[in-house]
Amino acid sequence: MRKSEIRELLKVAQDPEVISFAGGLPSPKSFPIEDLQGIVHSVLQNHGKDALQYGSTEGLPTLREVIAERAMKDGMKNITKDNVIITSGSQQALDIVGKLFLNPGDTAIVGLPSYLGGINAFRTYESNLIGVPVDKDGMDMDLLEEKIKELEKNDIQPKFIYTIPTFQNPAGVVLSESRRKKMIDIALEHDLLIIEDDPYGKLRFDISAMKPIKALDDENCVVYLSTFSKILAPGLRLAWMIASDDVMRKVAVCKQALDLCSSTFGQFIANEFMRSGSMDLHIMRIVEMYKPKRDTMMKSMEAYFPDGYECNRPKGGMFAWVTLPEGIDTEIMFLDAIKQKVAYVHGKAFHVDGGGGRSMRLNFSYPTNEQIEEGMKRLGSVIEKKLNVVC
Amino acid sequence: MRKSEIRELLKVAQDPEVISFAGGLPSPKSFPIEDLQGIVHSVLQNHGKDALQYGSTEGLPTLREVIAERAMKDGMKNITKDNVIITSGSQQALDIVGKLFLNPGDTAIVGLPSYLGGINAFRTYESNLIGVPVDKDGMDMDLLEEKIKELEKNDIQPKFIYTIPTFQNPAGVVLSESRRKKMIDIALEHDLLIIEDDPYGKLRFDISAMKPIKALDDENCVVYLSTFSKILAPGLRLAWMIASDDVMRKVAVCKQALDLCSSTFGQFIANEFMRSGSMDLHIMRIVEMYKPKRDTMMKSMEAYFPDGYECNRPKGGMFAWVTLPEGIDTEIMFLDAIKQKVAYVHGKAFHVDGGGGRSMRLNFSYPTNEQIEEGMKRLGSVIEKKLNVVC
Repeated sequence: MRKSEIRELLKVAQDPEVISFAGGLPSPKSFPIEDLQGIVHSVLQNHGKDALQYGSTEGLPTLREVIAERAMKDGMKNITKDNVIITSGSQQALDIVGKLFLNPGDTAIVGLPSYLGGINAFRTYESNLIGVPVDKDGMDMDLLEEKIKELEKNDIQPKFIYTIPTFQNPAGVVLSESRRKKMIDIALEHDLLIIEDDPYGKLRFDISAMKPIKALDDENCVVYLSTFSKILAPGLRLAWMIASDDVMRKVAVCKQALDLCSSTFGQFIANEFMRSGSMDLHIMRIVEMYKPKRDTMMKSMEAYFPDGYECNRPKGGMFAWVTLPEGIDTEIMFLDAIKQKVAYVHGKAFHVDGGGGRSMRLNFSYPTNEQIEEGMKRLGSVIEKKLNVVC
Repeated sequence: MRKSEIRELLKVAQDPEVISFAGGLPSPKSFPIEDLQGIVHSVLQNHGKDALQYGSTEGLPTLREVIAERAMKDGMKNITKDNVIITSGSQQALDIVGKLFLNPGDTAIVGLPSYLGGINAFRTYESNLIGVPVDKDGMDMDLLEEKIKELEKNDIQPKFIYTIPTFQNPAGVVLSESRRKKMIDIALEHDLLIIEDDPYGKLRFDISAMKPIKALDDENCVVYLSTFSKILAPGLRLAWMIASDDVMRKVAVCKQALDLCSSTFGQFIANEFMRSGSMDLHIMRIVEMYKPKRDTMMKSMEAYFPDGYECNRPKGGMFAWVTLPEGIDTEIMFLDAIKQKVAYVHGKAFHVDGGGGRSMRLNFSYPTNEQIEEGMKRLGSVIEKKLNVVC
């Protein structure tokens, strides 16, 4: 696309009449503004001098402690605050992973599809990203093993596997338990790290709780990432990494040069939020808000999309992933969609191998139920027209 | 030092009885906690849904606008919000500068001495840092020119000059107006960028306002950095960069991969703070707080330090820079100082050429007046004993 076209597109995308399934934003209605009023007041009143000052690079000790306790509840073993570092959003954690583990020309493995922000972060380190297909049970472990062996035959030792095992962004799928175990085995056999990115794990609609891969990690081969962005508020820019003491020491040195420390004020707020006991209740409220949205999206898809598409019903998280019939290019179709005032992200954006041309990611957490229904109607008619041209 | 010694040292340094001139922290008494209570309440009440959401990578438009207006008041020309990007502290801006402009093996010029955080950030990009001496009027422009020519003779084209022209960290000095002009001339002649880091410019005790180098920059060779850390609170982790549209576009792409955006909540707070009109008054309050501390430090130095030291009376900022007589190594002396429960940062830490062995940086913003007097007394006796050993 030429620059003028992109500008035009951006202008249209900012049109308030456009219904956007494109972003990865939580619903603004999910922000606990009332709770935060109280928390922020008390943080300033009782901890103002510390909360407004520089903090340690690793993060607020009491927050790291309560995160460690939670991690143990989720099944991780022997986690103390020394295994936890606070980052400025998970994006910073992904940047740190790239900075620590990737030299120019190094290889890392990601899903096909995989989270765009991870791909971007790793690419800035001039790495080679190799994709392994993701199906309805997450990344395919046979294909992963095949790919690693193929790389090793060419004397290429990948540095890590990047995976979003639970309610994957963008595909919405969950890596099965047996594959989680298998991934650990593969990582150990081939001396690879696993970067487990878990922003959505708590947004669980109709599936029993899955243990994180990190909970199966007896040999410290997993670096675990999670965030306050999806369970509290992205505007605080706070996330955390969990890994071995050894990795954490390197992370701290790296983060020191990146931003000295994450927002101390935000960390005090997040700490009060976790310790006040309102977090679990709040997560339940978010789930109750997002589940009907997922349902609306699925129902509307059935009602308005022409036959021939594929979509797994996401059991949690924020995204549905749709693959359209042969002949459709979702990147090209986006221009028609935006003219009909509906937006999504085309599938190629999430593929390091140029694939995904028939797919698109649809976010259901941000739009209202009414917007979802209307937006899916618009999108259905865009697809229908496109299919008619194709046929 | 062996690791066990460092651990021992750190333990001692955390002793609350240690008076620390080591940090670069603002006084916690300078934080406008009362003002912030009101601001934060109103931000959550009136803008909660936006302030807790993801924001644009460049930063909150209204905040960028008011920063641009301020920059124009400070003498910069043709600055609009499009020339301003919000960063997660100046440390992130320094990291972005390194990431954008330095490839492994590239050369950049810094002061002798220069800010440690800048040096650290640039070093992570495996660059070569060349030092140019700083005297009482800031970086020496003749030596700068000489150094650049010498490098060019060896086919080395430095990428930028990194400078803290006003109340330099660590030396406390101000780059004279004529040198500011000269620096621009040199940058243009040799096709170099100037990275102007200006965190302390507003903390002015007894010198008339100096225009930033960026105000003399008709050809867009200056990238200007400043921060809320020293005029509001470091705990928000908010700073800003000002540069040409062209540089800003690259910065935005880079920042996107680093942390998506800086804290939206913090940006709304900083915006209200700037627009409420309480900022100027607050800066006056900080100056009234720090100036007597500077005076106490200077008086105590005269009273308690043995003859033979050199120190320029800093006209603003947060640091004094002391050079002791021949024969003293401030890195070694630090062990004695810490035993006497007083801390500083030794001069070598700020020198990329291994120099600065007789110097030390003393912070006067964080300790109270009473602590400054007592700490300088302790430090004076440490120096005296050391000198007696030397003689």
